[in-house]
Amino acid sequence: MAPFRGLNRRMAENGHLLNGYCAIPDAFSAELYARQGFDVITLDLQHGLIGYDAAVAMLQAITAVDVLPLVRIPWLDPAIIMKALDAGALGVTCPMVNTAADAERLVQYCKYPPMGQRSLGPVRAATAYGEDYAAHANRELSVIAMIETAEAVANIESILDVPGLDGVYIGPGDLSLSLNRKPQLEEFDTEVDAAIDRVLKGCIKKGLIAGIFAPGPEQAWRMVTRGFRFVTLSTDARALAFQAKSWVEKFRLLSREPSRVTGASGLKG
Amino acid sequence: MAPFRGLNRRMAENGHLLNGYCAIPDAFSAELYARQGFDVITLDLQHGLIGYDAAVAMLQAITAVDVLPLVRIPWLDPAIIMKALDAGALGVTCPMVNTAADAERLVQYCKYPPMGQRSLGPVRAATAYGEDYAAHANRELSVIAMIETAEAVANIESILDVPGLDGVYIGPGDLSLSLNRKPQLEEFDTEVDAAIDRVLKGCIKKGLIAGIFAPGPEQAWRMVTRGFRFVTLSTDARALAFQAKSWVEKFRLLSREPSRVTGASGLKG
Amino acid sequence: MAPFRGLNRRMAENGHLLNGYCAIPDAFSAELYARQGFDVITLDLQHGLIGYDAAVAMLQAITAVDVLPLVRIPWLDPAIIMKALDAGALGVTCPMVNTAADAERLVQYCKYPPMGQRSLGPVRAATAYGEDYAAHANRELSVIAMIETAEAVANIESILDVPGLDGVYIGPGDLSLSLNRKPQLEEFDTEVDAAIDRVLKGCIKKGLIAGIFAPGPEQAWRMVTRGFRFVTLSTDARALAFQAKSWVEKFRLLSREPSRVTGASGLKG
Amino acid sequence: MAPFRGLNRRMAENGHLLNGYCAIPDAFSAELYARQGFDVITLDLQHGLIGYDAAVAMLQAITAVDVLPLVRIPWLDPAIIMKALDAGALGVTCPMVNTAADAERLVQYCKYPPMGQRSLGPVRAATAYGEDYAAHANRELSVIAMIETAEAVANIESILDVPGLDGVYIGPGDLSLSLNRKPQLEEFDTEVDAAIDRVLKGCIKKGLIAGIFAPGPEQAWRMVTRGFRFVTLSTDARALAFQAKSWVEKFRLLSREPSRVTGASGLKG
Amino acid sequence: MAPFRGLNRRMAENGHLLNGYCAIPDAFSAELYARQGFDVITLDLQHGLIGYDAAVAMLQAITAVDVLPLVRIPWLDPAIIMKALDAGALGVTCPMVNTAADAERLVQYCKYPPMGQRSLGPVRAATAYGEDYAAHANRELSVIAMIETAEAVANIESILDVPGLDGVYIGPGDLSLSLNRKPQLEEFDTEVDAAIDRVLKGCIKKGLIAGIFAPGPEQAWRMVTRGFRFVTLSTDARALAFQAKSWVEKFRLLSREPSRVTGASGLKG
Amino acid sequence: MAPFRGLNRRMAENGHLLNGYCAIPDAFSAELYARQGFDVITLDLQHGLIGYDAAVAMLQAITAVDVLPLVRIPWLDPAIIMKALDAGALGVTCPMVNTAADAERLVQYCKYPPMGQRSLGPVRAATAYGEDYAAHANRELSVIAMIETAEAVANIESILDVPGLDGVYIGPGDLSLSLNRKPQLEEFDTEVDAAIDRVLKGCIKKGLIAGIFAPGPEQAWRMVTRGFRFVTLSTDARALAFQAKSWVEKFRLLSREPSRVTGASGLKG
Repeated sequence: MAPFRGLNRRMAENGHLLNGYCAIPDAFSAELYARQGFDVITLDLQHGLIGYDAAVAMLQAITAVDVLPLVRIPWLDPAIIMKALDAGALGVTCPMVNTAADAERLVQYCKYPPMGQRSLGPVRAATAYGEDYAAHANRELSVIAMIETAEAVANIESILDVPGLDGVYIGPGDLSLSLNRKPQLEEFDTEVDAAIDRVLKGCIKKGLIAGIFAPGPEQAWRMVTRGFRFVTLSTDARALAFQAKSWVEKFRLLSREPSRVTGASGLKG
Repeated sequence: MAPFRGLNRRMAENGHLLNGYCAIPDAFSAELYARQGFDVITLDLQHGLIGYDAAVAMLQAITAVDVLPLVRIPWLDPAIIMKALDAGALGVTCPMVNTAADAERLVQYCKYPPMGQRSLGPVRAATAYGEDYAAHANRELSVIAMIETAEAVANIESILDVPGLDGVYIGPGDLSLSLNRKPQLEEFDTEVDAAIDRVLKGCIKKGLIAGIFAPGPEQAWRMVTRGFRFVTLSTDARALAFQAKSWVEKFRLLSREPSRVTGASGLKG
Repeated sequence: MAPFRGLNRRMAENGHLLNGYCAIPDAFSAELYARQGFDVITLDLQHGLIGYDAAVAMLQAITAVDVLPLVRIPWLDPAIIMKALDAGALGVTCPMVNTAADAERLVQYCKYPPMGQRSLGPVRAATAYGEDYAAHANRELSVIAMIETAEAVANIESILDVPGLDGVYIGPGDLSLSLNRKPQLEEFDTEVDAAIDRVLKGCIKKGLIAGIFAPGPEQAWRMVTRGFRFVTLSTDARALAFQAKSWVEKFRLLSREPSRVTGASGLKG
Repeated sequence: MAPFRGLNRRMAENGHLLNGYCAIPDAFSAELYARQGFDVITLDLQHGLIGYDAAVAMLQAITAVDVLPLVRIPWLDPAIIMKALDAGALGVTCPMVNTAADAERLVQYCKYPPMGQRSLGPVRAATAYGEDYAAHANRELSVIAMIETAEAVANIESILDVPGLDGVYIGPGDLSLSLNRKPQLEEFDTEVDAAIDRVLKGCIKKGLIAGIFAPGPEQAWRMVTRGFRFVTLSTDARALAFQAKSWVEKFRLLSREPSRVTGASGLKG
Repeated sequence: MAPFRGLNRRMAENGHLLNGYCAIPDAFSAELYARQGFDVITLDLQHGLIGYDAAVAMLQAITAVDVLPLVRIPWLDPAIIMKALDAGALGVTCPMVNTAADAERLVQYCKYPPMGQRSLGPVRAATAYGEDYAAHANRELSVIAMIETAEAVANIESILDVPGLDGVYIGPGDLSLSLNRKPQLEEFDTEVDAAIDRVLKGCIKKGLIAGIFAPGPEQAWRMVTRGFRFVTLSTDARALAFQAKSWVEKFRLLSREPSRVTGASGLKG
Repeated sequence: MAPFRGLNRRMAENGHLLNGYCAIPDAFSAELYARQGFDVITLDLQHGLIGYDAAVAMLQAITAVDVLPLVRIPWLDPAIIMKALDAGALGVTCPMVNTAADAERLVQYCKYPPMGQRSLGPVRAATAYGEDYAAHANRELSVIAMIETAEAVANIESILDVPGLDGVYIGPGDLSLSLNRKPQLEEFDTEVDAAIDRVLKGCIKKGLIAGIFAPGPEQAWRMVTRGFRFVTLSTDARALAFQAKSWVEKFRLLSREPSRVTGASGLKG
């Protein structure tokens, strides 16, 4: 059986968890990416190119890797939430949770009765995690609400009061847009920063997990030091493009200024 | 119509061409990778996880990008050669070409009569490149033989004499193994280096293209300065894994030694 | 043309119908499973691993078999209902129908005007069943609401009054959970049994079809004798796992106690 | 980069635009169909057999063709709207928009703040159209509401007043059904014709685009002369079936009356 | 069970058989195309965009249609021959059969011992056609060799003598190329015509089937009158493109010369 | 990392290994089947409906299960052998190995130099099993030749002498056919039995593994007691069909003779 150990238990062991987003809809790239040292891999069904069928194959491919498999769903919709959990995701991140009512619906769709109204039939989840999956699912699966609008920030305290919510996740790009700022991923201007602060403090006060996206390792670490315990370090697509582009640019530079060639290659292992 | 302009005409414009290998069997990762500045994208149907169906989708996805689409076939087999060309590949790289007879068969399978015995029916190629595709295919499509065994090096002169061959491509890993050396991609020991030299000189003498794999941009440039005009700069899978791993390692380092955090993020754009 | 003959006409011929659920998202396993003697095959898009693309291929694969093809949708959503019907499903089973309003929406999405608001465009359905498909669809297609919560049982009479509904289907596992009982598929405790009874009697009174899940043939038959006319006999995934496991266990037993080997093999034909 | 030029700019150049619908869920048929001279190709995720995964491959395949790629979504749902736009569709057509409130939600889901609430993360769109995609998306992407019920016609003026809507599209089949008429695609009876007229005049008055489906070229042209500026000329599936059937019927006729064979073949080029 | 009735028995009933080629790798387009009146549908795995996985889905999709399902394999290779037959193809067409030895190998790969060396395991074929499939397969499955080179024409008599061969099929395009003529599909010049004649007469003499490709219905009928009993009438891809293009061109013509609009639409039904 | 432990080491631990064949081309059914207690799962790319793309997904899906993943290739062909091994199969079974020369080619394609000529590039294998995969592959990967013709039996001693071969596997159905007997899976007539005996004794003498197919657990165990150490216990497709059919038949029997209903259901857990 694959390890059936959710976000909170892993968090208790680690203090913080490093997440990688998959946007490429392929099971091999997911498996390869998942083996680079992350604690959590989130399949991004919202902005990634990933539909349900691809997600199933990707979930299977990373079951052999010791990472926590999460799914970011495209929208607050019971169909995809329950299908993702039945397929073996050990939690969901839900975009655009703006009110406590949104958060309550999210929890309802993720939890079996009596906590919620998830329908019973964990076809792959019970195959992968064992026949007693349903008995432990409400405890092990995590429910994370994305806070990414001014409305959500205004409602943050009531959102955090919703029982069954494990934490929230800030989308800094969308939050910036909602506050009429240019999308920001790293250097937040005052108003965006204040909103982030309010969400973070709310989480810390209630003992909930606060998560956020970071475009690079320094920013990811800064977010941990600020109090975030669930930090995304970019995506598979950005890693692929960023490295390929930087190699090509280095080669083009050399072809224009060959004297720059030094001994060591860009490859280490 | 997509540009129907083969390796030799692009080479004439550029002097040398930079290639990227796709090993991930996904059309989005291929499109993303192809947009990072390469001159040529080769779908690796040999060692990549790519079957024929994935290859078709990938060829379609990179048609909108101004790169030359090639396919490395798994083995010298007319079925996959003709299917790849009909699907829109503008040339093939064929592994393990060890004799002039191998090279002749390769050319035969790639060229329409009277040069060869390729069967007529370029269903997607004529859709993408225009109804007159077949009239120009023998001229525009490139045929590249991989030289990666001691036997092939011993036969290099007769291989290079085969009419219709545009060039050869050295697989340094397999060549090292065949010469009873540990696989080498960068620092070649004497015997491997001598073999490479013999192949390269043969190509230069006959005006054919010599190609080779390089794991990083410095090595790629060194190979150009050595005389190679077709150089692969690693693969999509290595780019993805390498960048993700380096980001994760940087983050883990910071979590152990937080004082190392500096101002700039790893992300530029 | 494939036979365009819905649930009610088949029921009239048979008295009761035996259903098999497909949870494996593959067209070959669906075709193979559909040929084992069932009257109805329901593609389970709710708990099965089946997305829309897989469902289309599976519907095509079972068109050649004389079974009624139904789809269980993941949730009460017009998009998937209409797409499933356009793709050739001859009816839908909808989970978690808890109120008459839910049932009305379900009927609305399944029926063309003036009965409902289904949009016209049966692209594959008209291909498979004939150009006059739309003229007969409202009559032939079946609409089945799943009753699987305490709320639904409380509302059963008003649900059954909704015009256009052909019947209901009890999910005993979810119903048990909703009544704060351990999920039960066979031996129902008093409260669950009373709820089932109320639903069944309501159906019989109004001449509607009552359906239910059964994990094995004896239970399936007991349900028929109780008055259910649409009975599911387990799933493809359970059949596969159950038989494989029982064969393996028999082999392991023999390897521990070889004297148990008797003449006949487990295989008959 | 692929041309990032939306419906309105193309319309300004052409006066009217000719659209083709894809119902076949295949990237090659889409590419082939898109190369036959259309201005716009709309992937029909409503009635076509196309799911999200197929749509992504099809969008990639037609990026190399100079057509405007639109998607008809199955229903007014933020998940599929945002996923389709992130995947590179340059606009959506939404079925069953019956009220101004429906139209407002549609615009909200299609536009980034402050105009709407689309979430930021154009993973493939920015790959295909350039890194500044998000800055221009609200201006270039088109939002088209389908008017296909009596209710929608009654509300047409308020629907057309919704800011951000680029136009409406009449589904004559569904509109006929909603008005209790047999589905009509060409010869509209009085009531259907009056409804069409009302919608058309409303669009012309407000300077919005009016679109409609036509089953053949003469009807398509008649619709242009009537004032429609966005006209669909049938679908890929109908083109395939219509031509194949007409060829087969001609052959069968010849086999019965061989004297009818004349010189010219049905094939021109 | 699907009808298990091969080429020869169908031929006996019809006198001649009309074939359609599938080049589009989609199960829905195959099903739609197969329903337009053909006697035989051949999945073109040689020049079509069809790989093995697509072929399986397509074979399933046309099982419900009363057409004979054949597969044109990419090359004379036992792997794909046996896989295609196991998946339910009721015969193969093999390209580039140039000698009696080629034809013997082809027959060997298609027939069970003692006639040949096909391996036993008709997993889907026995599912679709019944458990006694293997007992009748050698009789029902057809084996057709493509004659498309000068060498093949020179060897035609010995090829036709190979026991187990049901017939040959002329590829006029490849045959023209092989004879140093421009590819011809309709008007054959003298040398090509003489080669066709020689093949046709050989077949008639030995009572074998002669087949050929025709681009349109008149040419198809001419070929029947010449003695061909198996005639292909173009492909799905050509039907799709030809009809779409002709509709678009008609519309463009009308937009330039509106006076040409006449009463009748291009659509009939 | 997944366990990189080949057939021989697992055999040393177990004495014999129980294999299950996958014929259904789906990753979920493979994962489910692999969890029923088998020691080895062989993806049957010969007679199963499995192409390369499906095989990759299936190999990924069973990596998390502690079974040895093998692939039966369709035919002795270096392309599919090397692609299957690069994708993570830990050995191949090759049909129709009839001579020592066949066996030598098989070994050549499976082993890296200097033992063979496998090309280096284990893209997924090194991802799944670790960067040192290539260093241990020649030792851990198993090479099994299928003996299923009279010719192969006649050559068995020389076949078994080929260095690098780990064992042979008898296909009793094909072997029966080749000996002009009806296909037999269980009760072998004298000549077939003698052939099996000769192969088995050859293996035992040389310390090589002998494998065979068995249709049920008793026959599987009989084969172990006879000396076979690698025994296949039917297939996923047969398990699915056999159980579903037996359940349906039981239900039909009950519907005809209701008095037969007894207390216990067919379901145990």
